[in-house]
Amino acid sequence: MKQVDVEEAMSKRYPEIVVLVTQKSKDGKVNITPLGWAMPANSKPRCWAISIAKKHYSNKVINETKEFCLCLPSLKQKEDTLYCGGVSGWDVDKLGKCSFELLPATRIKSPLLKNSIACFECKVIGKFDAPDHTVFIGEVVAAHVSDRKDKLYNLGNHNLQVLK
Amino acid sequence: MKQVDVEEAMSKRYPEIVVLVTQKSKDGKVNITPLGWAMPANSKPRCWAISIAKKHYSNKVINETKEFCLCLPSLKQKEDTLYCGGVSGWDVDKLGKCSFELLPATRIKSPLLKNSIACFECKVIGKFDAPDHTVFIGEVVAAHVSDRKDKLYNLGNHNLQVLK
Repeated sequence: MKQVDVEEAMSKRYPEIVVLVTQKSKDGKVNITPLGWAMPANSKPRCWAISIAKKHYSNKVINETKEFCLCLPSLKQKEDTLYCGGVSGWDVDKLGKCSFELLPATRIKSPLLKNSIACFECKVIGKFDAPDHTVFIGEVVAAHVSDRKDKLYNLGNHNLQVLK
Repeated sequence: MKQVDVEEAMSKRYPEIVVLVTQKSKDGKVNITPLGWAMPANSKPRCWAISIAKKHYSNKVINETKEFCLCLPSLKQKEDTLYCGGVSGWDVDKLGKCSFELLPATRIKSPLLKNSIACFECKVIGKFDAPDHTVFIGEVVAAHVSDRKDKLYNLGNHNLQVLK
Protein backbone atom coordinates (compact mmCIF):
# COMPACT_ATOMS: atom_id res chain seq x y z
CA MET A 1 0.00 0.00 0.00
CA LYS A 2 1.27 3.49 -0.73
CA GLN A 3 0.01 6.68 0.89
CA VAL A 4 -1.76 9.00 -1.54
CA ASP A 5 -3.94 12.06 -1.62
CA VAL A 6 -7.40 11.34 -0.20
CA GLU A 7 -9.11 12.23 -3.51
CA GLU A 8 -7.04 9.68 -5.41
CA ALA A 9 -8.04 6.98 -2.94
CA MET A 10 -11.73 8.02 -3.02
CA SER A 11 -11.79 7.43 -6.78
CA LYS A 12 -11.17 3.72 -6.08
CA ARG A 13 -14.67 3.35 -4.61
CA TYR A 14 -16.37 3.14 -8.03
CA PRO A 15 -18.59 1.48 -9.22
CA GLU A 16 -20.89 3.18 -6.72
CA ILE A 17 -24.61 2.77 -6.13
CA VAL A 18 -26.90 5.39 -7.70
CA VAL A 19 -30.30 6.26 -6.27
CA LEU A 20 -32.96 8.74 -7.33
CA VAL A 21 -34.45 10.63 -4.41
CA THR A 22 -37.84 12.23 -5.08
CA GLN A 23 -39.29 15.00 -2.93
CA LYS A 24 -42.47 17.04 -2.99
CA SER A 25 -42.19 20.49 -1.46
CA LYS A 26 -44.92 22.00 0.69
CA ASP A 27 -46.01 24.13 -2.28
CA GLY A 28 -46.39 21.01 -4.42
CA LYS A 29 -43.24 21.04 -6.58
CA VAL A 30 -41.75 17.61 -7.28
CA ASN A 31 -37.95 17.43 -7.48
CA ILE A 32 -35.68 14.51 -8.35
CA THR A 33 -32.10 14.19 -7.10
CA PRO A 34 -29.61 11.51 -8.20
CA LEU A 35 -27.26 10.53 -5.37
CA GLY A 36 -24.35 8.17 -5.02
CA TRP A 37 -24.19 8.45 -1.25
CA ALA A 38 -26.81 6.07 0.08
CA MET A 39 -26.75 2.94 2.23
CA PRO A 40 -29.01 0.82 4.41
CA ALA A 41 -28.72 2.10 7.98
CA ASN A 42 -30.97 -0.04 10.20
CA SER A 43 -32.51 -3.52 10.20
CA LYS A 44 -35.76 -3.34 12.23
CA PRO A 45 -37.27 -1.18 10.97
CA ARG A 46 -35.44 -1.04 7.65
CA CYS A 47 -33.94 2.41 7.09
CA TRP A 48 -31.92 4.05 4.32
CA ALA A 49 -29.30 6.72 5.00
CA ILE A 50 -28.67 9.34 2.30
CA SER A 51 -26.14 12.17 2.40
CA ILE A 52 -27.02 15.44 0.63
CA ALA A 53 -24.99 18.64 0.38
CA LYS A 54 -26.43 21.35 2.62
CA LYS A 55 -26.53 23.83 -0.23
CA HIS A 56 -28.78 21.65 -2.38
CA TYR A 57 -32.47 22.39 -2.89
CA SER A 58 -33.35 18.78 -2.01
CA ASN A 59 -31.73 19.22 1.40
CA LYS A 60 -34.07 22.11 2.18
CA VAL A 61 -37.17 20.23 1.02
CA ILE A 62 -36.37 17.06 2.97
CA ASN A 63 -35.66 19.14 6.07
CA GLU A 64 -39.10 20.70 5.71
CA THR A 65 -41.18 17.68 4.70
CA LYS A 66 -39.32 14.93 6.63
CA GLU A 67 -39.83 12.40 3.85
CA PHE A 68 -38.43 11.21 0.53
CA CYS A 69 -38.81 8.34 -1.90
CA LEU A 70 -35.60 6.46 -2.75
CA CYS A 71 -35.66 4.71 -6.15
CA LEU A 72 -33.04 2.41 -7.72
CA PRO A 73 -32.80 3.55 -11.35
CA SER A 74 -32.86 1.33 -14.43
CA LEU A 75 -31.14 1.75 -17.79
CA LYS A 76 -34.37 3.28 -19.12
CA GLN A 77 -33.85 6.19 -16.72
CA LYS A 78 -30.18 6.78 -17.59
CA GLU A 79 -30.45 9.98 -19.60
CA ASP A 80 -32.94 11.55 -17.19
CA THR A 81 -30.74 10.59 -14.24
CA LEU A 82 -27.72 12.27 -15.85
CA TYR A 83 -29.79 15.36 -16.65
CA CYS A 84 -31.13 15.70 -13.10
CA GLY A 85 -27.62 15.31 -11.70
CA GLY A 86 -26.33 18.15 -13.86
CA VAL A 87 -28.80 20.90 -12.95
CA SER A 88 -30.02 22.41 -9.69
CA GLY A 89 -33.52 22.23 -8.24
CA TRP A 90 -32.98 25.87 -7.17
CA ASP A 91 -32.85 26.95 -10.84
CA VAL A 92 -34.81 24.42 -12.85
CA ASP A 93 -38.11 22.56 -12.76
CA LYS A 94 -36.33 19.30 -13.58
CA LEU A 95 -39.50 17.30 -14.16
CA GLY A 96 -40.58 19.46 -17.06
CA LYS A 97 -37.30 18.73 -18.85
CA CYS A 98 -37.25 14.94 -18.59
CA SER A 99 -39.48 11.94 -19.18
CA PHE A 100 -39.75 10.44 -15.71
CA GLU A 101 -43.24 9.08 -15.12
CA LEU A 102 -44.52 9.70 -11.59
CA LEU A 103 -46.70 7.26 -9.70
CA PRO A 104 -48.45 7.99 -6.41
CA ALA A 105 -46.87 6.61 -3.24
CA THR A 106 -49.07 5.05 -0.56
CA ARG A 107 -47.75 6.56 2.69
CA ILE A 108 -45.93 9.74 1.63
CA LYS A 109 -46.43 12.61 -0.79
CA SER A 110 -43.14 12.19 -2.69
CA PRO A 111 -43.83 10.12 -5.82
CA LEU A 112 -42.52 6.77 -7.04
CA LEU A 113 -40.81 6.69 -10.44
CA LYS A 114 -42.14 4.22 -12.99
CA ASN A 115 -39.48 1.93 -14.54
CA SER A 116 -37.32 1.98 -11.42
CA ILE A 117 -35.92 -1.33 -10.16
CA ALA A 118 -37.38 -0.62 -6.71
CA CYS A 119 -38.78 2.36 -4.79
CA PHE A 120 -38.77 2.87 -1.03
CA GLU A 121 -41.14 5.33 0.64
CA CYS A 122 -39.16 6.81 3.54
CA LYS A 123 -40.08 8.94 6.54
CA VAL A 124 -37.16 10.77 8.15
CA ILE A 125 -36.54 9.60 11.73
CA GLY A 126 -33.41 11.66 12.29
CA LYS A 127 -30.38 13.25 10.71
CA PHE A 128 -26.68 13.83 11.30
CA ASP A 129 -25.25 17.24 10.64
CA ALA A 130 -21.86 16.73 8.90
CA PRO A 131 -19.72 19.76 7.96
CA ASP A 132 -21.09 20.30 4.42
CA HIS A 133 -23.66 17.50 4.08
CA THR A 134 -26.69 16.25 6.01
CA VAL A 135 -27.08 12.51 6.53
CA PHE A 136 -30.83 11.83 6.60
CA ILE A 137 -32.06 8.54 8.08
CA GLY A 138 -35.33 7.45 6.47
CA GLU A 139 -37.50 4.62 7.78
CA VAL A 140 -38.97 2.54 4.93
CA VAL A 141 -42.75 2.65 5.36
CA ALA A 142 -43.65 1.02 2.02
CA ALA A 143 -41.75 -0.58 -0.87
CA HIS A 144 -42.38 -1.30 -4.53
CA VAL A 145 -40.54 -3.20 -7.27
CA SER A 146 -40.73 -3.65 -11.03
CA ASP A 147 -39.65 -6.62 -13.13
CA ARG A 148 -36.66 -4.74 -14.52
CA LYS A 149 -33.15 -6.05 -13.82
CA ASP A 150 -31.03 -3.40 -15.57
CA LYS A 151 -29.95 -1.45 -12.49
CA LEU A 152 -27.58 1.46 -13.05
CA TYR A 153 -24.30 2.03 -11.21
CA ASN A 154 -22.03 5.06 -11.24
CA LEU A 155 -18.56 4.36 -12.64
CA GLY A 156 -17.46 7.96 -11.98
CA ASN A 157 -17.24 10.96 -14.30
CA HIS A 158 -20.97 10.88 -15.14
CA ASN A 159 -20.66 7.36 -16.53
CA LEU A 160 -23.72 5.32 -15.58
CA GLN A 161 -23.74 1.65 -16.59
CA VAL A 162 -25.48 -1.65 -15.97
CA LEU A 163 -23.01 -4.09 -14.39
CA LYS A 164 -22.75 -7.73 -15.42
CA MET B 1 -44.39 -0.90 -9.99
CA LYS B 2 -46.06 -3.29 -7.58
CA GLN B 3 -46.07 -2.95 -3.79
CA VAL B 4 -44.16 -5.71 -2.02
CA ASP B 5 -42.78 -6.63 1.36
CA VAL B 6 -39.87 -4.36 2.32
CA GLU B 7 -37.43 -7.27 2.51
CA GLU B 8 -38.19 -8.29 -1.07
CA ALA B 9 -37.49 -4.77 -2.27
CA MET B 10 -34.29 -4.52 -0.21
CA SER B 11 -32.89 -7.55 -2.01
CA LYS B 12 -32.91 -5.49 -5.23
CA ARG B 13 -30.07 -3.32 -3.93
CA TYR B 14 -27.36 -5.87 -4.76
CA PRO B 15 -24.57 -5.75 -5.92
CA GLU B 16 -23.61 -3.79 -2.80
CA ILE B 17 -20.27 -2.33 -1.76
CA VAL B 18 -18.21 -4.33 0.73
CA VAL B 19 -15.71 -2.73 3.09
CA LEU B 20 -13.43 -4.15 5.75
CA VAL B 21 -13.39 -2.07 8.91
CA THR B 22 -10.40 -2.64 11.18
CA GLN B 23 -10.33 -1.62 14.81
CA LYS B 24 -7.79 -1.86 17.63
CA SER B 25 -9.26 -2.03 21.11
CA LYS B 26 -7.73 -0.20 24.06
CA ASP B 27 -6.23 -3.50 25.24
CA GLY B 28 -4.53 -3.98 21.88
CA LYS B 29 -6.76 -6.54 20.16
CA VAL B 30 -7.18 -6.03 16.41
CA ASN B 31 -10.61 -6.94 14.97
CA ILE B 32 -11.80 -6.94 11.34
CA THR B 33 -15.45 -6.44 10.37
CA PRO B 34 -16.83 -6.80 6.82
CA LEU B 35 -19.70 -4.40 6.18
CA GLY B 36 -22.01 -3.68 3.29
CA TRP B 37 -23.43 -0.52 4.80
CA ALA B 38 -20.93 2.22 4.00
CA MET B 39 -21.02 5.41 1.97
CA PRO B 40 -19.19 8.70 1.59
CA ALA B 41 -20.87 11.26 3.86
CA ASN B 42 -19.08 14.59 3.45
CA SER B 43 -16.91 16.41 0.89
CA LYS B 44 -14.62 18.78 2.81
CA PRO B 45 -13.26 17.05 4.76
CA ARG B 46 -13.90 13.70 3.13
CA CYS B 47 -15.84 11.44 5.50
CA TRP B 48 -17.16 7.87 5.35
CA ALA B 49 -20.34 6.78 7.09
CA ILE B 50 -20.61 3.17 8.26
CA SER B 51 -23.58 1.53 9.97
CA ILE B 52 -22.87 -1.23 12.52
CA ALA B 53 -25.36 -3.23 14.61
CA LYS B 54 -25.31 -2.12 18.22
CA LYS B 55 -24.82 -5.66 19.47
CA HIS B 56 -21.60 -6.16 17.52
CA TYR B 57 -18.18 -6.14 19.16
CA SER B 58 -16.90 -3.65 16.57
CA ASN B 59 -19.58 -1.16 17.62
CA LYS B 60 -18.28 -1.22 21.20
CA VAL B 61 -14.64 -0.80 20.13
CA ILE B 62 -15.33 2.11 17.77
CA ASN B 63 -17.43 3.81 20.44
CA GLU B 64 -14.46 3.55 22.80
CA THR B 65 -11.59 4.37 20.45
CA LYS B 66 -13.34 6.85 18.10
CA GLU B 67 -11.46 5.57 15.06
CA PHE B 68 -11.43 2.86 12.42
CA CYS B 69 -9.68 2.02 9.16
CA LEU B 70 -11.99 1.40 6.18
CA CYS B 71 -10.47 -0.83 3.48
CA LEU B 72 -11.90 -1.79 0.07
CA PRO B 73 -11.19 -5.53 -0.26
CA SER B 74 -9.70 -7.30 -3.27
CA LEU B 75 -10.29 -10.79 -4.63
CA LYS B 76 -7.20 -11.94 -2.70
CA GLN B 77 -9.06 -11.17 0.54
CA LYS B 78 -12.29 -12.94 -0.44
CA GLU B 79 -12.08 -16.03 1.78
CA ASP B 80 -10.88 -14.06 4.80
CA THR B 81 -13.66 -11.50 4.27
CA LEU B 82 -16.29 -14.27 4.23
CA TYR B 83 -14.75 -15.84 7.33
CA CYS B 84 -14.72 -12.58 9.30
CA GLY B 85 -18.34 -11.93 8.32
CA GLY B 86 -19.43 -15.29 9.65
CA VAL B 87 -18.01 -15.15 13.17
CA SER B 88 -18.24 -12.67 16.04
CA GLY B 89 -15.46 -10.57 17.51
CA TRP B 90 -17.05 -11.28 20.91
CA ASP B 91 -16.21 -15.00 20.56
CA VAL B 92 -13.23 -15.31 18.26
CA ASP B 93 -9.81 -13.75 17.69
CA LYS B 94 -10.53 -13.43 13.96
CA LEU B 95 -6.98 -12.43 13.02
CA GLY B 96 -5.53 -15.69 14.27
CA LYS B 97 -7.81 -17.63 11.93
CA CYS B 98 -7.16 -15.81 8.67
CA SER B 99 -4.29 -14.60 6.56
CA PHE B 100 -4.84 -10.83 6.51
CA GLU B 101 -1.52 -9.00 6.63
CA LEU B 102 -1.60 -5.89 8.82
CA LEU B 103 0.32 -2.73 8.02
CA PRO B 104 0.73 0.22 10.36
CA ALA B 105 -1.45 3.28 9.76
CA THR B 106 0.05 6.74 10.02
CA ARG B 107 -2.54 8.69 12.06
CA ILE B 108 -4.56 6.04 13.91
CA LYS B 109 -3.90 2.79 15.76
CA SER B 110 -6.26 0.60 13.67
CA PRO B 111 -4.16 -1.13 10.97
CA LEU B 112 -4.28 -1.06 7.19
CA LEU B 113 -4.76 -4.38 5.38
CA LYS B 114 -2.17 -5.31 2.74
CA ASN B 115 -3.66 -6.26 -0.65
CA SER B 116 -6.68 -3.97 -0.23
CA ILE B 117 -7.68 -1.76 -3.16
CA ALA B 118 -7.58 1.29 -0.86
CA CYS B 119 -7.53 2.00 2.89
CA PHE B 120 -8.87 5.10 4.62
CA GLU B 121 -7.73 6.04 8.14
CA CYS B 122 -10.80 7.53 9.81
CA LYS B 123 -11.36 9.47 13.04
CA VAL B 124 -14.96 9.50 14.28
CA ILE B 125 -16.42 13.01 14.30
CA GLY B 126 -19.94 11.97 15.31
CA LYS B 127 -22.57 9.27 15.18
CA PHE B 128 -26.29 8.77 14.70
CA ASP B 129 -28.12 6.45 17.04
CA ALA B 130 -30.57 4.43 14.88
CA PRO B 131 -32.88 1.85 16.53
CA ASP B 132 -30.61 -1.20 16.23
CA HIS B 133 -27.53 0.22 14.45
CA THR B 134 -25.09 3.09 14.99
CA VAL B 135 -24.11 5.23 12.01
CA PHE B 136 -20.53 6.36 12.65
CA ILE B 137 -19.17 9.32 10.66
CA GLY B 138 -15.41 9.04 10.15
CA GLU B 139 -13.23 11.83 8.83
CA VAL B 140 -10.53 10.52 6.48
CA VAL B 141 -7.19 11.64 7.95
CA ALA B 142 -4.94 9.59 5.63
CA ALA B 143 -5.44 7.33 2.61
CA HIS B 144 -3.53 4.54 0.90
CA VAL B 145 -3.94 2.55 -2.32
CA SER B 146 -2.47 -0.53 -3.95
CA ASP B 147 -2.15 -1.36 -7.65
CA ARG B 148 -4.89 -4.01 -7.44
CA LYS B 149 -8.07 -3.57 -9.47
CA ASP B 150 -10.04 -6.68 -8.43
CA LYS B 151 -12.43 -5.03 -5.97
CA LEU B 152 -15.04 -7.25 -4.37
CA TYR B 153 -18.78 -6.55 -4.27
CA ASN B 154 -21.50 -8.34 -2.35
CA LEU B 155 -24.10 -10.00 -4.56
CA GLY B 156 -26.08 -11.16 -1.51
CA ASN B 157 -26.20 -14.55 0.25
CA HIS B 158 -22.47 -14.46 1.07
CA ASN B 159 -21.55 -14.27 -2.60
CA LEU B 160 -18.59 -11.91 -3.09
CA GLN B 161 -17.49 -11.26 -6.66
CA VAL B 162 -15.39 -8.94 -8.80
CA LEU B 163 -17.69 -7.04 -11.20
CA LYS B 164 -16.85 -6.47 -14.86
